[in-house]
Amino acid sequence: MEKTTKKISWREKIHEIIYEADTQEGKLFDVILLVVIIASILLVMLESVKSFDAKFHEYLYIGEWIITIFFSVEYILRIISIKKPLKYVLSFYGIIDLLATIPMYLSFILVGSHSLVALRALRLLRVFRILKLARYTGASEKLKLAMRASKAKISVFLFFVIIVCIILGTIMYMVEGAENGFTNIPKSIYWAIVTLTTVGFGDIAPQTPLGQLIASVIMILGYAIIAIPTGIVSSELTKSTLSEDNNTQSCPTCLKEKHKDKAVFCYNCGSVLNP
Amino acid sequence: MEKTTKKISWREKIHEIIYEADTQEGKLFDVILLVVIIASILLVMLESVKSFDAKFHEYLYIGEWIITIFFSVEYILRIISIKKPLKYVLSFYGIIDLLATIPMYLSFILVGSHSLVALRALRLLRVFRILKLARYTGASEKLKLAMRASKAKISVFLFFVIIVCIILGTIMYMVEGAENGFTNIPKSIYWAIVTLTTVGFGDIAPQTPLGQLIASVIMILGYAIIAIPTGIVSSELTKSTLSEDNNTQSCPTCLKEKHKDKAVFCYNCGSVLNP
Amino acid sequence: MEKTTKKISWREKIHEIIYEADTQEGKLFDVILLVVIIASILLVMLESVKSFDAKFHEYLYIGEWIITIFFSVEYILRIISIKKPLKYVLSFYGIIDLLATIPMYLSFILVGSHSLVALRALRLLRVFRILKLARYTGASEKLKLAMRASKAKISVFLFFVIIVCIILGTIMYMVEGAENGFTNIPKSIYWAIVTLTTVGFGDIAPQTPLGQLIASVIMILGYAIIAIPTGIVSSELTKSTLSEDNNTQSCPTCLKEKHKDKAVFCYNCGSVLNP
Amino acid sequence: MEKTTKKISWREKIHEIIYEADTQEGKLFDVILLVVIIASILLVMLESVKSFDAKFHEYLYIGEWIITIFFSVEYILRIISIKKPLKYVLSFYGIIDLLATIPMYLSFILVGSHSLVALRALRLLRVFRILKLARYTGASEKLKLAMRASKAKISVFLFFVIIVCIILGTIMYMVEGAENGFTNIPKSIYWAIVTLTTVGFGDIAPQTPLGQLIASVIMILGYAIIAIPTGIVSSELTKSTLSEDNNTQSCPTCLKEKHKDKAVFCYNCGSVLNP
Repeated sequence: MEKTTKKISWREKIHEIIYEADTQEGKLFDVILLVVIIASILLVMLESVKSFDAKFHEYLYIGEWIITIFFSVEYILRIISIKKPLKYVLSFYGIIDLLATIPMYLSFILVGSHSLVALRALRLLRVFRILKLARYTGASEKLKLAMRASKAKISVFLFFVIIVCIILGTIMYMVEGAENGFTNIPKSIYWAIVTLTTVGFGDIAPQTPLGQLIASVIMILGYAIIAIPTGIVSSELTKSTLSEDNNTQSCPTCLKEKHKDKAVFCYNCGSVLNP
Repeated sequence: MEKTTKKISWREKIHEIIYEADTQEGKLFDVILLVVIIASILLVMLESVKSFDAKFHEYLYIGEWIITIFFSVEYILRIISIKKPLKYVLSFYGIIDLLATIPMYLSFILVGSHSLVALRALRLLRVFRILKLARYTGASEKLKLAMRASKAKISVFLFFVIIVCIILGTIMYMVEGAENGFTNIPKSIYWAIVTLTTVGFGDIAPQTPLGQLIASVIMILGYAIIAIPTGIVSSELTKSTLSEDNNTQSCPTCLKEKHKDKAVFCYNCGSVLNP
Repeated sequence: MEKTTKKISWREKIHEIIYEADTQEGKLFDVILLVVIIASILLVMLESVKSFDAKFHEYLYIGEWIITIFFSVEYILRIISIKKPLKYVLSFYGIIDLLATIPMYLSFILVGSHSLVALRALRLLRVFRILKLARYTGASEKLKLAMRASKAKISVFLFFVIIVCIILGTIMYMVEGAENGFTNIPKSIYWAIVTLTTVGFGDIAPQTPLGQLIASVIMILGYAIIAIPTGIVSSELTKSTLSEDNNTQSCPTCLKEKHKDKAVFCYNCGSVLNP
Repeated sequence: MEKTTKKISWREKIHEIIYEADTQEGKLFDVILLVVIIASILLVMLESVKSFDAKFHEYLYIGEWIITIFFSVEYILRIISIKKPLKYVLSFYGIIDLLATIPMYLSFILVGSHSLVALRALRLLRVFRILKLARYTGASEKLKLAMRASKAKISVFLFFVIIVCIILGTIMYMVEGAENGFTNIPKSIYWAIVTLTTVGFGDIAPQTPLGQLIASVIMILGYAIIAIPTGIVSSELTKSTLSEDNNTQSCPTCLKEKHKDKAVFCYNCGSVLNP
């Protein structure tokens, strides 16, 4: 993959535009990409509405191809301009980018593969990427920190919820049985999840008194244990919010910390703080 | 719009009554307006109940006109008494006030426009205005502060929720398809929102095992991530509640308040605090 | 109402048993009352189950009368033994006690009034009273304090929710109309409450794309604003929980407060604390 | 139950493997048990899916027996290797282990008892046990502590919720009656729980205006009071999260830890702390 010096600088230029957001062109590219991604998703949505598709099929088809070509060029440029192309191709975003591009080409070979175009919606995830580069808000950063801190506790909680749903779903299958809509255990577990999370579609609902009693227990359980993830995140965020307020500088004379943000003098020894 | 001195004082009087709540008349006007708005909404509600409307159509019609005339007079007085009438007319409340008044007049010209009378419900928003003037509670003020502080984080969260719903809705459209009620992508996204927010109408529900598996993931996700906005607001409110606790003593030298509990010296002027 | 000294002391004895819980008999009476109330409610429940009532109607009817007589005697004793009988009769619990007793007598005069027996369920509220007397847990006291502290904020919040539901319900009536189940505005408001609170029965569900869009907004709104009451209560409870940890005794030497519960020496001056 | 020295040491070896997780073999046994439990539950699930069972009935049946024999051997070894076998047999896990084993044997005697095999799902609870032994995360420990601390408050809350549901369910039975699906009081209470917990199946829904009004009150109540358990857990977790922050220095004299940040003297022995 060794190229001449001139070619490398050309590739570096593209790399800067596509992968970074420090230059004017880089920011412009991000904005254009964002617009094209949103346009591509609107297109897929409109196409799925039968009455709309019947009228404007031609235009939608042309739009599809324009976007597919844009995505294809972007994909090739991304591969060319990066030093380790394979790493990109096999990365999470690399696979999504490919999935968003190939369905149109595939539709020539495989009939029916056209509907895979909807996979393009996954490209919306790149929005997070773009916004991160733009750094337009620090709020998401704080949220992410709190999430990371409470990850272990949330995992234990979700693990507990899933086990409870498996057990309760199995019991409901035995109590209600196939004649009341609980046709098999996986479906009963699905129902237990629907109930515990307080979603409650109502496509399946217990009919026997005993089943309704157990359902009541599940519902009250679900109503009470939603407090747990909420409590976890609340406490993490409260901790980080409270510490936010605390100035991290220490007094140059007595070394005491945790001064108020607007403090001019040390609350402990009364000497002047560094501004 | 230049008027004589006498006329201006007359307009100022009306301005004081309508726009302010410091005088006896101003407060009385607010109460009357509140009563009329509530009466107008009750009227619209009763009118929409077919069985009731059939019996008392006459009375309801007369009531409608009384309220319309009251609102018209109020609207005109508001325009006359303010210094910059255009600013009011184009303001949020100005547009709502107009929308609440014109449908009755419009119903002479345009058949069917009468049902727009229901737009009058928007005038209920003025209740917040009136209560603000009355300042009957400081609680809403604190709530608003906490909301404002957590606005950025909540926005990021809602943005994340919407993107997740678009992606999951699209995937469900591909998995379940039109034969199971997921007729098009916008409808699937609507379903994803219904599910993630744990509302769960049940008018559309996944039928295939794979669809139910994805639905389970969405539901548990929705059950877990509701913790995020809750955590955000909790932490903001906790912060403001705890800071209420701050040391209430003021510095004997510079009179600054809100010292730390363990403070020996004033953080502002450096003089010794009372123990 | 003047009685002889002997009679008064007899009335005082009954008062002690019925209204207080300090003596052995007072506690016993509370337990018996609790059991009878629960039995009376179980009876009403069983009666409402048609298949059960058909078989055991006789026994249930006898049971009803035993409980009615018990309640009647209790009601009369309560009136006799209290100093201000009218105050009890017109009090909240006095009315409930009467409502729980008369339906059986009324059923002789008014046909169909027997179903009012179910009002007896309201007597369950006395459970809170009894438990309060028994003081078996301090947890409910703390909860009540936190509730009281956040009452103003919760009221503002609920007020806001109701206004939002009225406005959104009215708009949905205009958008969806009677042909999609939104037959009148009160029903539409009912639907808006069902949706905003994330209950989602699904007996009424939007059919038009615009209606589903507005519904999506309502649902995400409801999903986000549930954070508010939660945040309010969390912050109040956090405040009271954090202050719980702090020993309120002050050091006998330096008067510093907020010692740890297990502290033996003052953290400030090192002198011994009172045990 | 007296055995020779040699036999006892053999039993001790098994005890170490089955009941403990300190040795290599102990850990291996835990992992194997976990895998077999999960396999046994997958088997039960697959069996309940009629289309799958029809095809692979033979294989599933053989798999059932392999697992039953494994569980039987494990059960017997557990009894043999423990000092007080009766205590294990009558313990919570002992009963579950038995319930997971006998249905297959029972199916020879009692026709139809085979479906009890699904009870095996309860063995999933042992996962918590195994994970506890493995101590792979401290997160669950903290969660459990917070749960324990808020147990009393949560109990009072759930007690309150249940009483409210009984009263509201009874009222709804009187208002809506059997013709609108509220066939009896227990079913109405079930509906009240479904509504208050914001699950909202929609299999039963109020039809009368008064019923819908009461339902609205229940829903808003449910929407508001979910704040209570959440607030309880949040405050407990916040407390424990904040106390994590405690001064980590230990007293140079008595080695006690967790001093206040501003402490100058050890709260336990009264000696001077390092600054």
